[in-house]
Amino acid sequence: MSSREPLVIGVDFGTLSGRAVVVRVRDGAELGSAVSEYPHGVIDRILPSTGRGLPPDWALQVPSDYVDVLRAAVPEAIRAADVDPADVIGIGTDFTACTMVPTTADGVPLCELPEFAGDPHAYVKLWRHHAAQPQADRITALATKREESWLPRYGGLISSEWEFAKALEVFEEAPEVYARMRHWVELADWIVWQLTGTYVRNACTAGYKGILQDGRYPDANFLEELAPGFGSFVDEKLEHPLGALGDKAGTLNARAAEWTGLREGIAVAVGNVDAHVTAPAVQAVAPGQMVAIMGTSTCHVMNGAELREVPGMCGVVDGGIVSGQWGYEAGQSGVGDIFAWFVEHGVPASYVDDAREAGISIHELLTRLAAVQEIGEHGLVALDWHSGNRSVLVDHELSGVVVGQTLATRAEDTYRALLEATAFGTRMIVETFERSGVPVTELIVAGGLVKNALLMQIYADVTNLPLSVAGSAQSPALGSAIHAAVAAGAHPDVPAAAAAMGSVRRAVHRPIAENVKAYDDLYTEYAALHDYFGRGANDVMHRLAARRRSVRKGLHR
Amino acid sequence: MSSREPLVIGVDFGTLSGRAVVVRVRDGAELGSAVSEYPHGVIDRILPSTGRGLPPDWALQVPSDYVDVLRAAVPEAIRAADVDPADVIGIGTDFTACTMVPTTADGVPLCELPEFAGDPHAYVKLWRHHAAQPQADRITALATKREESWLPRYGGLISSEWEFAKALEVFEEAPEVYARMRHWVELADWIVWQLTGTYVRNACTAGYKGILQDGRYPDANFLEELAPGFGSFVDEKLEHPLGALGDKAGTLNARAAEWTGLREGIAVAVGNVDAHVTAPAVQAVAPGQMVAIMGTSTCHVMNGAELREVPGMCGVVDGGIVSGQWGYEAGQSGVGDIFAWFVEHGVPASYVDDAREAGISIHELLTRLAAVQEIGEHGLVALDWHSGNRSVLVDHELSGVVVGQTLATRAEDTYRALLEATAFGTRMIVETFERSGVPVTELIVAGGLVKNALLMQIYADVTNLPLSVAGSAQSPALGSAIHAAVAAGAHPDVPAAAAAMGSVRRAVHRPIAENVKAYDDLYTEYAALHDYFGRGANDVMHRLAARRRSVRKGLHR
Repeated sequence: MSSREPLVIGVDFGTLSGRAVVVRVRDGAELGSAVSEYPHGVIDRILPSTGRGLPPDWALQVPSDYVDVLRAAVPEAIRAADVDPADVIGIGTDFTACTMVPTTADGVPLCELPEFAGDPHAYVKLWRHHAAQPQADRITALATKREESWLPRYGGLISSEWEFAKALEVFEEAPEVYARMRHWVELADWIVWQLTGTYVRNACTAGYKGILQDGRYPDANFLEELAPGFGSFVDEKLEHPLGALGDKAGTLNARAAEWTGLREGIAVAVGNVDAHVTAPAVQAVAPGQMVAIMGTSTCHVMNGAELREVPGMCGVVDGGIVSGQWGYEAGQSGVGDIFAWFVEHGVPASYVDDAREAGISIHELLTRLAAVQEIGEHGLVALDWHSGNRSVLVDHELSGVVVGQTLATRAEDTYRALLEATAFGTRMIVETFERSGVPVTELIVAGGLVKNALLMQIYADVTNLPLSVAGSAQSPALGSAIHAAVAAGAHPDVPAAAAAMGSVRRAVHRPIAENVKAYDDLYTEYAALHDYFGRGANDVMHRLAARRRSVRKGLHR
Repeated sequence: MSSREPLVIGVDFGTLSGRAVVVRVRDGAELGSAVSEYPHGVIDRILPSTGRGLPPDWALQVPSDYVDVLRAAVPEAIRAADVDPADVIGIGTDFTACTMVPTTADGVPLCELPEFAGDPHAYVKLWRHHAAQPQADRITALATKREESWLPRYGGLISSEWEFAKALEVFEEAPEVYARMRHWVELADWIVWQLTGTYVRNACTAGYKGILQDGRYPDANFLEELAPGFGSFVDEKLEHPLGALGDKAGTLNARAAEWTGLREGIAVAVGNVDAHVTAPAVQAVAPGQMVAIMGTSTCHVMNGAELREVPGMCGVVDGGIVSGQWGYEAGQSGVGDIFAWFVEHGVPASYVDDAREAGISIHELLTRLAAVQEIGEHGLVALDWHSGNRSVLVDHELSGVVVGQTLATRAEDTYRALLEATAFGTRMIVETFERSGVPVTELIVAGGLVKNALLMQIYADVTNLPLSVAGSAQSPALGSAIHAAVAAGAHPDVPAAAAAMGSVRRAVHRPIAENVKAYDDLYTEYAALHDYFGRGANDVMHRLAARRRSVRKGLHR
């Protein structure tokens, strides 16, 4: 243990838990970490305060769960590292996005006010809350009609996951919540607000999720045409100072110092997003280096020297990943989530027994069984849209498909087909970037799924790209720590801090020529189904989703 | 008990077991029954004699399993009925079809000869053995080119399940088996051969499965063009006398009398098929009365006064169901099989626990959970081709599809979607008949699935037809008993025997107008996917099946 050296803390707020890591400023060594599960997890069926069911596509969280992470995981990480908290000079955070909450002027989430505790719109709307798809469609349609200059920066499509769609949903479906809210806050900034006592909007989510382009939000005329009364939204609900990535948002206040056990007054970095913060953690700051953060969902981030418009990308933002470069983002809204759903809801009891006997997880059992298969042996091809499509098509009313099941199909067959489907989804994104003049030369993978070697080899074979792997098992938290070090003035800028503190293992998984060829054929099948179901040839998924929604609301047509 | 009245025995040989029923000739009262499971079941993965794996789409059986039914179930049924076996005046049988075996001149299955015990082609090829699809495709293509007059009698398509496709498979893939076989025998006739000692081919399978039309098989020129050397197939391997349904094939021989405990010399009816024999059992002998025998698969049989050509029907045969009428047949190759596959391979452990706690089967649990859903609430639409498509498309390289799964999809959702998919498949058949001038006015359901009230209501709602239900829980065996009574001379003909001995409950399930409307919409989705995947717009299923086959054979392309 090398005490008495400057340390920083990175805290990564994920979908189900938050993780704190103690990192040495000099070389990025990770000295200790701790995880706190969110007590309420993801609320997507029943709102606990009322016991009432939620409509389909809803996904809420409870903000106090995040504070619990600061109170539990941070001190526990310090203890695990066996360091003196007085040596910690800064703290940085990253969050899922776009995850939003309505607050009072003081940043109190409306769901914490007794009069709003029963209103689902007063809670945190998690990134994967997809119920604002109709609002997103209208934003896209009107922006297309009016030829809004910002629309091509988002590949021509605004997502239901983002700030404006979710805000419009509140405006239209919960006017009482909308009226009471003073700020419509990204959780990436809300958590910094809790740490510092001041509200600073980070440049990353303001650009990617908040449609802030060239210094401006969508204008009042546009918003008023979208929905009468909504024209004042930006002026009334989005007021804030803007912070660049790596800047200091403020200093740790007394309350947060007590929560965390850290010194009052240390530097707190501007908020950031789990995906984007990972790029410096894996030293991927050059054009062509696409970082895929693979967990419940996958985010793809990549820097570029020039501005290009890529159809269906999540966005391109000036300084969105590293100040001074154009940051490109794309993503897949369901990856590990789909595998987990299948393991929980589609695997028979005998596999549970077999896994228990072998002392491995069901994921590992299925992976072992799938790994011995030849490519195409299962006779399946799937579409990975169980949680919608975030990039290229940008449509969260799309849904999953499995083609080719027979009476001989077993759980490992479908599991492998789902792994492959997500790899095809990544290839679709890579090819779309390349066709738009943004070539991808390397895939750098981080996140929980890197430990599945079969999955990694499938990705290398499907994309025909060498796969590098994050050196850290907790890259987003490391990335947050890197930003904390810059905010504290210990490194001059994020690229310099990344060079000192980040780590990556190059080309760990290389494409195998024979496999690449076999997957070329299967990708052709995937692409045909992708276009058939996703580009309007057969809108069955939209009709099924509309019927499902209307039935659940009791509105029989 | 009313002893000393004439009795008959019907034996129904199904896919997994055989059932014997003792029936009173006067009124059809079922006095006792017994079931024998086949010790070898369906062999579709490993051939026990060699321990070697079978290719995909294979399904074999062992002929001695059928004899075991005669030895066990028949005496047990007599005991259960508590009657004097001396009062039994006849025995009738029905079988799955087209189920074929190669035999010696004496009817010994080649798999029972030591030198052929290791050759899978020497075994019984069960109806659902689908590996002869390439042969079936060639038969259809050549018959189309040559404009063979018999082709329209089969809706323009010859199935891989049938006699000629399976024979050509033996000819081409196992010449040693082909050379040694003297007879290529339908099991419906083989079992009668065991009972009587003489080989009589029944008119039903000769027509539906053996392409015997207007008194002739396909001619030698056609067969020789199909495969050089195959031209002599009919002359060399299909020699036999033909028996009409309800005729006496012969009398019970000494060996079979010993097996069964019945009197030597009683009447043995000409063989029959489980589906077709059910029509008289449910008194469905008039045009428009479509009988659906719903078990592992579904067969549809219906009489018609006139000859029509229905695209993709299984066949139309003069006297194929009842002598003197045109018998139409259609079918779905996977129904209960698909539900069973899903329960075995797609339902998580928690459901197994819940079912056990509730003291019900997993099928019942899923049905209960699915039954409370509104139509369309699950957001899914499926294609029921997990075992291929037997009617309308007649293509066993088609496979299953589920569209619309999300992270919120649960096992009961997919289960219900599969129930519905099979109902849509039935509607597709009904509509195809109607468009061809063969209207369907009533659906009469028999078979193991009638006990699922949810499934029955779905069928009524999807087809918008009243559903009548077989009065007997063992209709095929009752139908065989009816034929036994006619063969023994106790009734003048099958319609008269059906009137006396058959039974049906009319319109037990009636369509509900609101449901009919909702299902009209979902059927439109099914039909669009049916045509997209089944009629060539996207041949992905054929390519996936070809790849699967080539990988399994170790032939990487």
